Amino acid sequence: MTKQAADAARVERILVPVPLGERAYDILIGRHQLCEAAGVIAELAPGARAAIVTDDNLAELHAPALESCLHQAGIATTRLTIRPGEASKSYACFVELCDGLLAAKIERNDLVIALGGGVVGDLSGFAASVLRRGVRFVQIPTSLLAQVDSSVGGKTGINSGHGKNLIGAFHQPALVICDTALLDTLSEREFKAGYAEVVKYGLIDDAAFFDWCEANWRRVIAGGPERDHAVATACRAKAAIVVRDEREDGDRALLNLGHTFAHALERLTAYNSRRLVHGEAVAIGLALAFRFSQRLGLCPGQDAGRVAAHLTSVGLPSRLQDVPGGTGSAAEIVEAMTQDKKVKRGALTFILAHGIGKSFIAPGVPADEVRRFIESELAGA
Amino acid sequence: MTKQAADAARVERILVPVPLGERAYDILIGRHQLCEAAGVIAELAPGARAAIVTDDNLAELHAPALESCLHQAGIATTRLTIRPGEASKSYACFVELCDGLLAAKIERNDLVIALGGGVVGDLSGFAASVLRRGVRFVQIPTSLLAQVDSSVGGKTGINSGHGKNLIGAFHQPALVICDTALLDTLSEREFKAGYAEVVKYGLIDDAAFFDWCEANWRRVIAGGPERDHAVATACRAKAAIVVRDEREDGDRALLNLGHTFAHALERLTAYNSRRLVHGEAVAIGLALAFRFSQRLGLCPGQDAGRVAAHLTSVGLPSRLQDVPGGTGSAAEIVEAMTQDKKVKRGALTFILAHGIGKSFIAPGVPADEVRRFIESELAGA
Ligand SMILES: NC(=O)c1ccc[n+]([C@@H]2O[C@H](COP(=O)([O-])OP(=O)(O)OC[C@H]3O[C@@H](n4cnc5c(N)ncnc54)[C@H](O)[C@@H]3O)[C@@H](O)[C@H]2O)c1
Ligand SMILES: NC(=O)c1ccc[n+]([C@@H]2O[C@H](COP(=O)([O-])OP(=O)(O)OC[C@H]3O[C@@H](n4cnc5c(N)ncnc54)[C@H](O)[C@@H]3O)[C@@H](O)[C@H]2O)c1
Repeated sequence: MTKQAADAARVERILVPVPLGERAYDILIGRHQLCEAAGVIAELAPGARAAIVTDDNLAELHAPALESCLHQAGIATTRLTIRPGEASKSYACFVELCDGLLAAKIERNDLVIALGGGVVGDLSGFAASVLRRGVRFVQIPTSLLAQVDSSVGGKTGINSGHGKNLIGAFHQPALVICDTALLDTLSEREFKAGYAEVVKYGLIDDAAFFDWCEANWRRVIAGGPERDHAVATACRAKAAIVVRDEREDGDRALLNLGHTFAHALERLTAYNSRRLVHGEAVAIGLALAFRFSQRLGLCPGQDAGRVAAHLTSVGLPSRLQDVPGGTGSAAEIVEAMTQDKKVKRGALTFILAHGIGKSFIAPGVPADEVRRFIESELAGA
Repeated sequence: MTKQAADAARVERILVPVPLGERAYDILIGRHQLCEAAGVIAELAPGARAAIVTDDNLAELHAPALESCLHQAGIATTRLTIRPGEASKSYACFVELCDGLLAAKIERNDLVIALGGGVVGDLSGFAASVLRRGVRFVQIPTSLLAQVDSSVGGKTGINSGHGKNLIGAFHQPALVICDTALLDTLSEREFKAGYAEVVKYGLIDDAAFFDWCEANWRRVIAGGPERDHAVATACRAKAAIVVRDEREDGDRALLNLGHTFAHALERLTAYNSRRLVHGEAVAIGLALAFRFSQRLGLCPGQDAGRVAAHLTSVGLPSRLQDVPGGTGSAAEIVEAMTQDKKVKRGALTFILAHGIGKSFIAPGVPADEVRRFIESELAGA
């Protein structure tokens, strides 16, 4: 028995439905799903043509396999490749991609397939949403972050000079395929960064899953059933929140746990992935959100300590001091948090926590309070 | 009594609802609605800020009045101005407008208001649909074409080198205000061009309205209750079709009567408004659609004759020969019709007619048949 056959035999495919009415779709999770999934795509859009959008790294590693599976299933493909990295979520790449899809004569009944991390997914999902006012879109996320977060929920978009993800659309995919074997080629650093988003779901409202993460994180990284379980748990959690609040008018904001800090840190490091990638910023943001909650007297110090300890043992950053090259002053960090938003009477909306698994939306947190907290963090208190 | 007061007293405000479920909205029609409408906008979005998008012409003619009405109603405004003309429906203007809206700190609960013709409406509606993944959008159409067609139905978008309106979104407005007095400053040429779209609704499925147009078109141009009636009839007709088929999966294609020809002519005249504006291209397209239907033995010659005669008496073009500078050969026209589409086995989808008010969707019209028809038109047969 080959390793691949063994893998396939060992792991069942997990199906997570996302019941969004006429926009409902499935997430298929498991090792070596690619060829089986190609058949599902063919059922979804018989006779359609598919434009596969990917980046240079994935073009080499996984695009050829996907293409041959799709061809076997009777789907003709063209491939459009972008440069890896956050810089591709730009107006310029968006325009180029739209024109590339038009040149490939992708029409209303055809498909756009994203094969890549969150960058490929966000950019190509946005292009799919506006191409001929909307074509169907399939996500094949290849990074852990994309499998557990960005590929689910329909948020797509690009960055502007004014901030991240400020231009985009809610465009739900028609299907999401999480082939966890694709993650085997991901760098350890990117894998761990994605893992911060896995932990987030435990911290939001599932203390038992956080316990499980503490016990099983090594096996998640190694691959095997634990990895699939972690991806499925994350997708289920995200799907449940998205179904409650598709367009982020309420509850969905919980998914931003750690992200107000994270976005400021990404901005202050100029989205330079050599210094910080999104998931690393989220790791620091999670630890900060818990310590901030502790400081406000909302959350036991023990829980804040466990969060930071778990991130550290995995090898993730958890303090502002962990950012290579530094972050700037407290005032600069607060300024970066509010840059693209009107601050209502000097107050910010934060996701805070009463403890692990007990997060909540806190509107009206005074910006001054945030600044003083960051000052104490920078002082290493 | 001033002229304005007399106007206001004479004409009731007409309300046309567009019952699209959670995307339902109203169209308000009448002379001198602007200040009353500002109050409706304020009710829609209490405390919101509004970005008024307009073009240089309207900035001078009507923006100041709108702004002072909005300020009186308690809505703060900023103004973003584009250059008039189809060339502004470009990627470059789209990017500039998005960044302008971000610089003005327009947020999720704020408004984008389009004050202008179809160009301003299409461009700013698209920008509103993607700004922070969607903000509310109010249409204040100022051209006849925009009042009777482009402001209703939620289609927004820009052009690509590959063709018109290929990049965009379905983004329904929250409110449409058709102040028919705004049309008093419109050039006669633009007014008549918009009138072609009014006639179209009669030709699609309302023979009695076509009769009415033949009898009343002079009063529509002059202003007065007939103009309001024409705008309201057109809006009602469009709303009914849009409600049946919001995303153009079926019936809505009827609105394309005359447009397959029109788009080809616009393309062949390089969207140069000195040669041809959209409504003029539509006028020729309507006449061609009826003569083509006649040639195919579907439509009585008398009806095709009436269509052309009405357009001519209004002062609109109705033949390919009416295009200043010519259109190119039949083969070039057919090529321009199909350029941005896969042609399925040499066949095109057309809107044809069994007579005035009896239009239907005809898939599978052989491209050869179209070419021969155009040849005979060019030969003046
Ligand atoms: N849409 C959403 O809801 C949402 C949610 C969270 C994050 N995001 C966005 O996601 C982006 C980050 O996503 P990301 O972390 O996946 O970044 P990414 O797409 O840049 O991928 C990270 C790196 O890993 C490489 N890579 C991906 N898969 C690989 C594989 N299987 N093997 C080898 N290399 C591989 C990529 O080429 C890239 O160099 C950010 O832009 C963030 O804003 C979006
Ligand atoms: N979204 C849709 O459903 C839809 C439907 C039909 C057409 N369209 C689009 O609409 C556009 C054409 O619209 P349009 O004909 O209004 O063109 P336009 O917006 O370019 O306006 C035509 C000209 O009239 C001027 N103008 C407008 N209102 C005026 C007024 N009250 N007084 C003086 N001048 C005025 C404008 O400044 C411009 O120079 C095309 O881009 C077409 O694709 C969209």
